[in-house]
Amino acid sequence: MIHRAQGRTPDQLRKVTIERNHTKHAEGSVLVSFGDTKVLCTASVLDKVPPHKKGSGEGWVTAEYGMLPRATHTRSDREAARGKQTGRTQEIQRLIGRSLRAVVDLKLLGEHTIQVDCDVIQADGGTRTASITGAYVALADAVSWMIAQKKIGQTPIKDAIAAISVGVVGGVPMLDLDYSEDSSCDTDMNVVMTGVGGFVEIQGTAEGTPFSVDELNALLGLAQKGIHELIAVQKLVLGE
Amino acid sequence: MIHRAQGRTPDQLRKVTIERNHTKHAEGSVLVSFGDTKVLCTASVLDKVPPHKKGSGEGWVTAEYGMLPRATHTRSDREAARGKQTGRTQEIQRLIGRSLRAVVDLKLLGEHTIQVDCDVIQADGGTRTASITGAYVALADAVSWMIAQKKIGQTPIKDAIAAISVGVVGGVPMLDLDYSEDSSCDTDMNVVMTGVGGFVEIQGTAEGTPFSVDELNALLGLAQKGIHELIAVQKLVLGE
Amino acid sequence: MIHRAQGRTPDQLRKVTIERNHTKHAEGSVLVSFGDTKVLCTASVLDKVPPHKKGSGEGWVTAEYGMLPRATHTRSDREAARGKQTGRTQEIQRLIGRSLRAVVDLKLLGEHTIQVDCDVIQADGGTRTASITGAYVALADAVSWMIAQKKIGQTPIKDAIAAISVGVVGGVPMLDLDYSEDSSCDTDMNVVMTGVGGFVEIQGTAEGTPFSVDELNALLGLAQKGIHELIAVQKLVLGE
Amino acid sequence: MIHRAQGRTPDQLRKVTIERNHTKHAEGSVLVSFGDTKVLCTASVLDKVPPHKKGSGEGWVTAEYGMLPRATHTRSDREAARGKQTGRTQEIQRLIGRSLRAVVDLKLLGEHTIQVDCDVIQADGGTRTASITGAYVALADAVSWMIAQKKIGQTPIKDAIAAISVGVVGGVPMLDLDYSEDSSCDTDMNVVMTGVGGFVEIQGTAEGTPFSVDELNALLGLAQKGIHELIAVQKLVLGE
Amino acid sequence: MIHRAQGRTPDQLRKVTIERNHTKHAEGSVLVSFGDTKVLCTASVLDKVPPHKKGSGEGWVTAEYGMLPRATHTRSDREAARGKQTGRTQEIQRLIGRSLRAVVDLKLLGEHTIQVDCDVIQADGGTRTASITGAYVALADAVSWMIAQKKIGQTPIKDAIAAISVGVVGGVPMLDLDYSEDSSCDTDMNVVMTGVGGFVEIQGTAEGTPFSVDELNALLGLAQKGIHELIAVQKLVLGE
Amino acid sequence: MIHRAQGRTPDQLRKVTIERNHTKHAEGSVLVSFGDTKVLCTASVLDKVPPHKKGSGEGWVTAEYGMLPRATHTRSDREAARGKQTGRTQEIQRLIGRSLRAVVDLKLLGEHTIQVDCDVIQADGGTRTASITGAYVALADAVSWMIAQKKIGQTPIKDAIAAISVGVVGGVPMLDLDYSEDSSCDTDMNVVMTGVGGFVEIQGTAEGTPFSVDELNALLGLAQKGIHELIAVQKLVLGE
Repeated sequence: MIHRAQGRTPDQLRKVTIERNHTKHAEGSVLVSFGDTKVLCTASVLDKVPPHKKGSGEGWVTAEYGMLPRATHTRSDREAARGKQTGRTQEIQRLIGRSLRAVVDLKLLGEHTIQVDCDVIQADGGTRTASITGAYVALADAVSWMIAQKKIGQTPIKDAIAAISVGVVGGVPMLDLDYSEDSSCDTDMNVVMTGVGGFVEIQGTAEGTPFSVDELNALLGLAQKGIHELIAVQKLVLGE
Repeated sequence: MIHRAQGRTPDQLRKVTIERNHTKHAEGSVLVSFGDTKVLCTASVLDKVPPHKKGSGEGWVTAEYGMLPRATHTRSDREAARGKQTGRTQEIQRLIGRSLRAVVDLKLLGEHTIQVDCDVIQADGGTRTASITGAYVALADAVSWMIAQKKIGQTPIKDAIAAISVGVVGGVPMLDLDYSEDSSCDTDMNVVMTGVGGFVEIQGTAEGTPFSVDELNALLGLAQKGIHELIAVQKLVLGE
Repeated sequence: MIHRAQGRTPDQLRKVTIERNHTKHAEGSVLVSFGDTKVLCTASVLDKVPPHKKGSGEGWVTAEYGMLPRATHTRSDREAARGKQTGRTQEIQRLIGRSLRAVVDLKLLGEHTIQVDCDVIQADGGTRTASITGAYVALADAVSWMIAQKKIGQTPIKDAIAAISVGVVGGVPMLDLDYSEDSSCDTDMNVVMTGVGGFVEIQGTAEGTPFSVDELNALLGLAQKGIHELIAVQKLVLGE
Repeated sequence: MIHRAQGRTPDQLRKVTIERNHTKHAEGSVLVSFGDTKVLCTASVLDKVPPHKKGSGEGWVTAEYGMLPRATHTRSDREAARGKQTGRTQEIQRLIGRSLRAVVDLKLLGEHTIQVDCDVIQADGGTRTASITGAYVALADAVSWMIAQKKIGQTPIKDAIAAISVGVVGGVPMLDLDYSEDSSCDTDMNVVMTGVGGFVEIQGTAEGTPFSVDELNALLGLAQKGIHELIAVQKLVLGE
Repeated sequence: MIHRAQGRTPDQLRKVTIERNHTKHAEGSVLVSFGDTKVLCTASVLDKVPPHKKGSGEGWVTAEYGMLPRATHTRSDREAARGKQTGRTQEIQRLIGRSLRAVVDLKLLGEHTIQVDCDVIQADGGTRTASITGAYVALADAVSWMIAQKKIGQTPIKDAIAAISVGVVGGVPMLDLDYSEDSSCDTDMNVVMTGVGGFVEIQGTAEGTPFSVDELNALLGLAQKGIHELIAVQKLVLGE
Repeated sequence: MIHRAQGRTPDQLRKVTIERNHTKHAEGSVLVSFGDTKVLCTASVLDKVPPHKKGSGEGWVTAEYGMLPRATHTRSDREAARGKQTGRTQEIQRLIGRSLRAVVDLKLLGEHTIQVDCDVIQADGGTRTASITGAYVALADAVSWMIAQKKIGQTPIKDAIAAISVGVVGGVPMLDLDYSEDSSCDTDMNVVMTGVGGFVEIQGTAEGTPFSVDELNALLGLAQKGIHELIAVQKLVLGE
């Protein structure tokens, strides 16, 4: 029998907190914690769009992801000093951007860009899922600011979105893996879902033994439960 | 009712060919075609390992991916001239490397690296799945060469591996999307499986409407069928 | 007569807080605030030294500086995405490193590196002076950790060090400029001093009218007062 | 007496083949082989010109060159992964571009760019000369496409162009060096000529002993013979 | 008692020469020598301004700094080959640009840029101060050329500007340190002043023991003397 | 009839000067002028060799080339600021290195590297040929220094080497083209020869009309004459 830290059951999320207005300049600024994983998500509103959207009447939502050098157990090189972002960073920021765009009507956004930055202050597994979950709240705040500023007339947000990791650890499907669980799991899966329960992204990887359809379904069941709870937290902090 | 090019049924692969020994220098060299998608996969054997494997007694398998500038409908910038690889390129080459490592026993490989290069000569959708499918054959040829050269005593390959894309196009789950299908699909999923039928990677993305568990299961069923057929082709060309 | 925000007098610091153990992985981790300027300073202990110190028996202390993209009023490009650090970033991180080395006996440090990272979470003027002031506390914590781990036998820290900005705003010499004061000042000066009151760095720039010896002396007097107070805060939080 | 592979005489070309329409997207797409050297040459028509030609009424022809990592005996680093093109690559692509422009009337091309990509699939010496020879055919096909599309009214091509290497190997002047000959030759020369027999480029390098005017003239004579034959092949495949 | 090379007294400049029209293409071209330190300063007039000045009616003055690889005792890597400028280079070129802008009325310059390049031909300490001192003369020549060309109606130069290093060497405050003095000094300070005697920049660093207000004042007194003499040389060569 | 500047005849070199010991740190330091083209060539002796020569007992000679930003009529971007060297720069520095290696016995050089830097102070055509011609003298001085230092026992220099440009301008073959001649010529050729009169490099390019064998021979005759004269100047300044 696997013992999880803090006596968590296999289907239990870590303590999740979402703090709005964490910094003062951004139109949306959220500090999200999944246990010891802490990510600062800011949403910046820009009155311009990337070239492929110019003149289209549509807006754009995009994301960048970074990790402070000592967010991790041992220090990682600073990407700005190395002169390039790793493949992992690029993969994660593309995932965050796609996930957010899945719940935004780009036409209703008009020719504006919402640029989301997810910067990991402290890492303990699940930084990409915490980023998506927190980024949604920062996005919602930025949209409220745009409406208050009369930059747009109605919200382009179609639904909430959140993400969680699941995995098979020591043969047991588990929800919301921390770093030590993630390092030792057989299968690792990140799931992104909307408020109404549709899948937006499923990324599952067998680190050791390949997984079966049954394991997949068990993991997806856990993920649905976790995301349901995360979206409840989002609604609570947004006062919806 | 959707009409597919060449009168394909929704659960039908495009014409798949795998040509071994396509170029003469590499230890494994395969030209794989999924319809009009053509990828040259070479496997190079290096008598060294990356730093994190030095002195471990284990080997490494890694992959790089590239696309010739005019493999696509309109010319793309050459990554070497731009001075960096796109996020998409990095994501794909990480996927190929992970997939191949899933079926290789790195201990049996000894301190050697098999470096796989997948270069897209012509693109028509499914370049990453064709790459994985062809790369496996190039890998197998490189391993045979190593055994013949007495660099290793037995094969480190534990199982075959192949990949296919599936997606929901116009409401219909379909196998092996070509470029025009991929551009218009609601959900796009890449699936990597082993010969015995375990999942190694599932990457599903809703481009439009989020997808449900039922759609997911339909897509996975199609993928299992397709990969079963691809692995049969691999065995055939390898003379197994 | 100039009115400062929060009714500050010209010779008054903003509210200064230094929070130790802000994140859990680093050997020293400090969140320093000078008013609305907030910088996370981590100190990482590495058991290696840069090439120019190899075999010398001496250690090294170095610093990197970064700013989260939306730490500022409008979003700045992410340096990791641009692929290089700006001249301003490099100038600041060189200053932080030099300042810290001024109070460390590299011989007593042995062949270890203390790598300090200063990442600006929120910027409102004075990010480099807050960085130096906070970095000293993170450094002290890392040194305590090294002693506890028996990596070194005695502290290599010779004195405390702190920094403050001063400037002439609307003709009045002022201490600890916030962003709006910094943007409108005639002369801007950053001063780094040790606990016993020696100057380690003075960097003064006339943005408008050149400044005189008298103005310089008035500014240095203010800086001495401010640094005296900052060092008192450092001692307090370190329990000295 | 030197024995050449396949029993070639010193003044004999390797087997030359030029296959048009090798890939389907490019306006011109040619696979050229000089023996085991195989280069894919595509010509892409762009409705824009580089800055120095904007508003001039003239077009531009330019080339990029690349080598697949395992086109060579041992794997070379991928230039896209290294983040820059080598000096050799830049030298070759500048040569290809200059050679093609020598036979194109840029005024008749109008404000269009023909972008030629030469990618070496398999290398066995003479990749730059095969590239120029094949690129001319791809260019001719792209021009025919432009005329068919009524982008231009008449051909801007003034003459054919081809290239060959010659060298002194073991004291004997030889035509069309393969890799092993090229590696051991004293003098290596690349010659580019037009259909009417004028020189466009001569690049001769003494790798060992400097060469004399007599050797130079012997080499140029061989080159003239070889280019004459190459231009005959070009005409044949173009149906001229 | 410290002996300086060439029997210099502590308050004595090295031999200073400023040669105008050193090269023929630039609008201003000056070779400045402070003893064995030799810097070529060219000023180029461009009929455009950087983006932040477009449409403002104001011009810009900016500087770049470089060092030939063997200007130094041992060869340094060529920055163009390394692919980036060091932090030191960026710090120096930012200092030169700021210093020159301090004496130029950007409104009177109109929408032109004066681009100054300071390239160190031979280094023996004080390259940044020689650069600023020489760059002013090159700037003055470029401005004269602009007036002669009727690009501007009156000079935008408000005052002369020059720079000198001072430092405490072996306990003695000294003017204009050469390389060996600079390498062994306790405190090193670069001072930039205008013709009327105002400070534009003071950058002082304690390399060893921190310095006191008294030492600072002694150094500033030396710097004032040195800059007074440098500005006399500037006026002489400019025929003012 | 073409009039050349300064009344030069078609077969006449510009005024050539070679000044040794131009700067003080390098083991060889030469300022070479071909008319208004001025290049500083330094030769640095390093007690190490590049990886491909390690343990071979042989040395290496290599070259880098640069141009000061305002060496030219209009300012060029600084390559260090752009972050990469142009294709032209790389082509030239490869040519210089190859040319020098043609006259050095790498075995006699032992495991040392002579690193030559050619930096163009002022450009007026022929910078690469002036670079090679001057670099030879810097190399000779560096070799003398090595012998004096007893780093090597005998000279590894086998012969002198020099280079000149020739071209067809207005139908007339001419020697040593200046910038205006080079810009308007039909054919441009750079020739590198040894003291005994062997060719090391011939690089001829038809800028307009292709050239014939007769023109080629006329140009080579001119080049032989010019190089003969250049080598006489080299011998004179080296006191041979």
